[in-house]
Amino acid sequence: MKALVFDVFGTVVDWRSGVARDVARLLGPDVDAAAFADAWRGRYTPSMDRVRRGERPWASLDTLHRESLDGLLVEFGRPGTDEGTRRELVLAWHRLDPWPDSVAGLARLRERFVIATLSNGNVSLLVDMARRAGLPWDTVLSAELFGHYKPDAEVYTGAATLLGAAPDDVLMVAAHVDDLAAARACGLRTAYVHRPDEKGPAGSPPVTDPAADLSVDSLVALAEHLGCP
Amino acid sequence: MKALVFDVFGTVVDWRSGVARDVARLLGPDVDAAAFADAWRGRYTPSMDRVRRGERPWASLDTLHRESLDGLLVEFGRPGTDEGTRRELVLAWHRLDPWPDSVAGLARLRERFVIATLSNGNVSLLVDMARRAGLPWDTVLSAELFGHYKPDAEVYTGAATLLGAAPDDVLMVAAHVDDLAAARACGLRTAYVHRPDEKGPAGSPPVTDPAADLSVDSLVALAEHLGCP
Repeated sequence: MKALVFDVFGTVVDWRSGVARDVARLLGPDVDAAAFADAWRGRYTPSMDRVRRGERPWASLDTLHRESLDGLLVEFGRPGTDEGTRRELVLAWHRLDPWPDSVAGLARLRERFVIATLSNGNVSLLVDMARRAGLPWDTVLSAELFGHYKPDAEVYTGAATLLGAAPDDVLMVAAHVDDLAAARACGLRTAYVHRPDEKGPAGSPPVTDPAADLSVDSLVALAEHLGCP
Repeated sequence: MKALVFDVFGTVVDWRSGVARDVARLLGPDVDAAAFADAWRGRYTPSMDRVRRGERPWASLDTLHRESLDGLLVEFGRPGTDEGTRRELVLAWHRLDPWPDSVAGLARLRERFVIATLSNGNVSLLVDMARRAGLPWDTVLSAELFGHYKPDAEVYTGAATLLGAAPDDVLMVAAHVDDLAAARACGLRTAYVHRPDEKGPAGSPPVTDPAADLSVDSLVALAEHLGCP
């Protein structure tokens, strides 16, 4: 195995707390910030699916987030939110905190393997996030580079090509079984990370993914499984 | 200014010494290693120009290096060089040493700005190089991501787009005036780095580029000019 590629939202960083924090800060206490974060994330897959089905040309995740936000502000009774606040809210997705094990786990993994993002987030989002959170990526790989969103095959095969690796020399790491299934269909190896808090109290993701090559409960545990000192 | 993008071969790393070192190691003392490195680099621009003119489909720099190498081995009287040695020789371009000021200068610049490669080298080459040399890129940007080689405009405008920046919020840093001229034509700012040893005794690049926004003699000097502590 040569390289590890990581899903980011939910796998490496905690999108729900980070988005809710900025929603509370920017929209005040009268908006249910956690519900707002959940509703925003709820529009994530449908918005990408319109691109994936070819119903619209390529649009970055920042653009999709902004469009979803404009709808949500109406839904949450804040249609008069000003332009500057809307822009700041979209940037909440650039300012997410890592899970407590992420930075230490990635640092250990990087000693032995090339590590890169493989996220639907756009490149500038991922760069901003990595700088703020200290995520030690060798490089940022994004759906944006391929003009396709996960789980389209072009993303997984494109990542292996850019890393100069055969698909089965690349390990896809994610907290989402559908992401891993799509990676596996392209010949990548897969590691499942159990992130029970990703979706808050409502979520109860499986503890393991029997179809994956391995299942772990943190990136530190992944480093240990892969023999990284 | 938000981001700095760097030419790599000659600007950040010393390709001539690094390639000559591996040529000497792999082909032995009877081959003039410095002449071999110069001849290999001499085929660089012509090989990319065939892609740029559309005379052939996209091919990575590793592929172009390999094709040039096969010709050079005939020219230098080593047509029987085995496949494993040829592959190792191509990887010499992944193992280049930084100029003495590069790592320190980049580390200082990164405190204030996003820093990325903007090189004709393929992504895996740039990742391998950065890991070996300790180059602290926020991300690796490559001609490979755009399907165009510098000085095609798509590379410079594409880099600004991926970094989420207007062209004039991006500074292109290079030791080559033609690279900077092409970046300027796309609206980027430009910084020239004087690298008198890039081409060995035969080279005598200009000390400054009057058309650039600034000219420096090292990446540490660039950090100082830009007020990076």
